[in-house]
Amino acid sequence: MEQTIKKAVQDEYPEDFSWCYGCGRLNENGHHFRTGWDGDNTVTIYTPRPEHTALPGFVYGGLIASLIDCHGTGSASLALHRKNGHEPGDAVEPPRFVTGSLHVDFIKPTPHGVPLKAVGTVEEVHPKKWKVHTEVFAGGKVCAKGEVVAVVMPSTFYEK
Amino acid sequence: MEQTIKKAVQDEYPEDFSWCYGCGRLNENGHHFRTGWDGDNTVTIYTPRPEHTALPGFVYGGLIASLIDCHGTGSASLALHRKNGHEPGDAVEPPRFVTGSLHVDFIKPTPHGVPLKAVGTVEEVHPKKWKVHTEVFAGGKVCAKGEVVAVVMPSTFYEK
Repeated sequence: MEQTIKKAVQDEYPEDFSWCYGCGRLNENGHHFRTGWDGDNTVTIYTPRPEHTALPGFVYGGLIASLIDCHGTGSASLALHRKNGHEPGDAVEPPRFVTGSLHVDFIKPTPHGVPLKAVGTVEEVHPKKWKVHTEVFAGGKVCAKGEVVAVVMPSTFYEK
Repeated sequence: MEQTIKKAVQDEYPEDFSWCYGCGRLNENGHHFRTGWDGDNTVTIYTPRPEHTALPGFVYGGLIASLIDCHGTGSASLALHRKNGHEPGDAVEPPRFVTGSLHVDFIKPTPHGVPLKAVGTVEEVHPKKWKVHTEVFAGGKVCAKGEVVAVVMPSTFYEK
């Protein structure tokens, strides 16, 4: 049985922050990545669309990078939210993050046609800067590893 | 007047290598990134689709990572092809590369609605391993910098 994310941080983002092509619930054409807690790890699960191929049978690397990116900012948001005493679903708006940097190591070709599971470990570098280490699994095997440095979104971003 | 890529390496890839969601000319739903020479630099130009937003008005980071990724493998292919005495359009099949690793630094929010221009510098690390340094410009300003380590595709990949 496929694992699902019950309470995702993206479900709680304010509307003006919900248009991300990767993880915005209001972006009709986007991926709708959803990220939640699994114990002390963060998890995002996504099944690539038929067109998300690199070669026939293998997942496109840019899609894997996108998954790691949004999983990173979502994980950082979950972690700071928890540090502040909150969990998704308690009706408090979670903090918003942007990606400072993204690194992906492609470990092995990622098979297409199965769900991808990104599992993250979050590390606080600074109250406004968090690092998220991610492993992406397909069919139980690690196919890619990622690191995102996520930064609390500057207020200039949404005051425009 | 918008610059266009006249002779792109992706136009010369064999059919079985043309299904990439980022740069495969046969993937109907993909981005169709096209990479060519501009002197000693490599260039890929792409205008994001309306849905490729992070926040309204800004380009999605995963799309920028995808652009840097395919620009990287395309640039490495161009460079090794040139080292072998060939240019796109001379009817010789260019070498195929896969991404070993991808790094992106997001320098500033990337405005949506203008063409993105990725400009690459290629460095040979090993005959089968090339590093591509990329700057992504929007409206004349550098918005992201990337580094791709591209590796000549192992034959196991396409013998399947």
